[in-house]
Amino acid sequence: MWNQKAFERGNSRSVIRELFAYGQKIKAERGEEAVCDFSLGNPATPPPEEVLTAFRTFAASDDPMALHGYTAAEGDLGVRKTLADRDTRRTGEPLTAEHYFLTAGAAPALTAVCYALTVGAGDEFIAPAPYFPEYAVFSTVAGGVFRALPARLPDLGIDAEALGEMITPATRGVFINSPNNPSGVVYTRENLLEVAAVLTEKSREVGHPIYLICDEPYRELVYDGAEVPYLPAIYPATVVCYSYSKSYSLPGDRIGYVLVPPTCPEHGELRAAIAGAARTLGHVCAPALLQYVVAAAEAKPDLAFYDANRRTLYDALTSCGYECVFPAGAFYLLCRAPGGDAKAFSEEAKTREGILVVPCDGFGLPGYVRIAYCVAPSVIARSLSGFERLAVLYRSRGISIK
Amino acid sequence: MWNQKAFERGNSRSVIRELFAYGQKIKAERGEEAVCDFSLGNPATPPPEEVLTAFRTFAASDDPMALHGYTAAEGDLGVRKTLADRDTRRTGEPLTAEHYFLTAGAAPALTAVCYALTVGAGDEFIAPAPYFPEYAVFSTVAGGVFRALPARLPDLGIDAEALGEMITPATRGVFINSPNNPSGVVYTRENLLEVAAVLTEKSREVGHPIYLICDEPYRELVYDGAEVPYLPAIYPATVVCYSYSKSYSLPGDRIGYVLVPPTCPEHGELRAAIAGAARTLGHVCAPALLQYVVAAAEAKPDLAFYDANRRTLYDALTSCGYECVFPAGAFYLLCRAPGGDAKAFSEEAKTREGILVVPCDGFGLPGYVRIAYCVAPSVIARSLSGFERLAVLYRSRGISIK
Repeated sequence: MWNQKAFERGNSRSVIRELFAYGQKIKAERGEEAVCDFSLGNPATPPPEEVLTAFRTFAASDDPMALHGYTAAEGDLGVRKTLADRDTRRTGEPLTAEHYFLTAGAAPALTAVCYALTVGAGDEFIAPAPYFPEYAVFSTVAGGVFRALPARLPDLGIDAEALGEMITPATRGVFINSPNNPSGVVYTRENLLEVAAVLTEKSREVGHPIYLICDEPYRELVYDGAEVPYLPAIYPATVVCYSYSKSYSLPGDRIGYVLVPPTCPEHGELRAAIAGAARTLGHVCAPALLQYVVAAAEAKPDLAFYDANRRTLYDALTSCGYECVFPAGAFYLLCRAPGGDAKAFSEEAKTREGILVVPCDGFGLPGYVRIAYCVAPSVIARSLSGFERLAVLYRSRGISIK
Repeated sequence: MWNQKAFERGNSRSVIRELFAYGQKIKAERGEEAVCDFSLGNPATPPPEEVLTAFRTFAASDDPMALHGYTAAEGDLGVRKTLADRDTRRTGEPLTAEHYFLTAGAAPALTAVCYALTVGAGDEFIAPAPYFPEYAVFSTVAGGVFRALPARLPDLGIDAEALGEMITPATRGVFINSPNNPSGVVYTRENLLEVAAVLTEKSREVGHPIYLICDEPYRELVYDGAEVPYLPAIYPATVVCYSYSKSYSLPGDRIGYVLVPPTCPEHGELRAAIAGAARTLGHVCAPALLQYVVAAAEAKPDLAFYDANRRTLYDALTSCGYECVFPAGAFYLLCRAPGGDAKAFSEEAKTREGILVVPCDGFGLPGYVRIAYCVAPSVIARSLSGFERLAVLYRSRGISIK
């Protein structure tokens, strides 16, 4: 006699975690070189020097109680002031400490937002495909329902018109993840304006605001100067969830925030609801030491590292004939699975070549695999002959891989 | 249009947090000395030297990625092995890594356990009064209901017979918090055996196990050699939730665990349900660096510090005539409110003397205040004349304070 939903979720690891665990096992048995693991979005660059310096400084502090004690549930006031000032400089919008609620990374931030927005069972949250599969879990925390908007091919932008048609009076929020996991796509300002126009109209129609839930842990991970617009300036009813997992290479340490900007209708009340939701989810405060570390360190990710990986992998795979989406951001490369069956291709890559790539069926994009290139360059170099042999194999079966 | 439950919880701070925030404000306005803050269980001793050494060692590591990357959702395997070995030595029971699930402190651990145990709306969780007020929040996460077992006076033990009478087929779990917050009582082995006997009989009667949910962040904070029995050896269907917040003075850093011991019926399935519950609550992994720190540092709290505070405060208050419960553990002193109205006494202590003590109405023990003596000894010294003046004041009104 257990909670059935919880039991099923605990018993079925995500396909990403499944592949990662397999990779760890094979590495332990046969050595690091036996596997090329592209499964997990675990950064392969160390935290920026500013972050490491902050850890060293705080470890040497003669007032450890000030670093490890409880903070307010919403986070230390000084930390929130620092983050607000930083975001004000970045966005040009007047943000202050009170607009921030610090969390243990983006997952509990998104979960608390969904909880706060769920008024009744059956309330709906929509994500444009491809989307991070855990959105389907976050959406249901307080009895909500997850719905996927089919991917717009070939550019993988958001089909604003189709989104409008999906919206019902039960719709409470729409996830926006840009740069996108798993596609690496950065939604253009034009596309976001279309989405904003549709949501504005639909909000009026249904009689309540439909919130954009902006999940942007990859905000700083963009190449060639691609723009990641500040969404609340485009669509006021936007809540921003951020995590330092990727930009500061601190995924295990769990630090991030929810920003409910003053553009949001009834933003104070929404913030209270998010605080109450977090409390219901077991939140006491975001890890205190990590709060001070991210406030002390203003740093940028090692873009050159990821960019080199991006180009090497994209060039090599397309040379073999694979059809890939050239990523403008994040550290994922989408590749069409030869033959169209992503699970079969992922399995074949795993068993024949020890190459671990994630089938995107769970991301709402069947027929594609996700290659997380946040790995050491040597892993990419080692994988290339394997990808080539797989291409030859599929061609030998008469399957066009383009 | 928000989730109403979340909004209310976010809008009504706990009375503890309310007092603490008031204290912070007054200190900022009039200086540290203006307030004697006994509101919050925030340790006033620094983390043990072993813990600080671990922070310094890890901050100097030349492999930061190994410290800050994702761990498995249940926690790093090596860390769990270390904790299991430690608990095996302490309890004499054969515990292994697989029995542990690391969490961001006790609050999400308890929340996940309640979630996992809630099969349907209306399932019941019982706590013997006095109890930590957040149990009433944790219980309801998946639609459960919280019920309080009235306190057994004068010893504040658990009335096992009355507990048995409260149990219905909807009862899923019973909280046990020993050493107890707010009473400082350590339940005796005899009392726990009575509880176990009742729960065993009632489990048979209702046809499913009634779980003990053992919340023991104060496990090591016991005085004069008081025994804190390992509950699963007394009652097999026990889940243990632990936090390093108090013993390692790391409350802000959020690190703890759920132990589902092999004595539990269907312990593997229960663990899966807890893992799924945690995932539903936004858990990805417990803060990674903190996992490594608590594994690296085997340390004890500064008992002498708390013991000295305990004796000073108890002796002084009882000399004034206050009626107090001499605490055997934790760092809280219960004191009967003169006149019987704890809220009125707390308010009077605050406004007249700047002494912040928490009325225990929310802990299921009206008529008492909780004095958290995890403070600098100077705070206690400063408070004594204030407590004395309050005693004189109440007596001048013809109110016996004994």
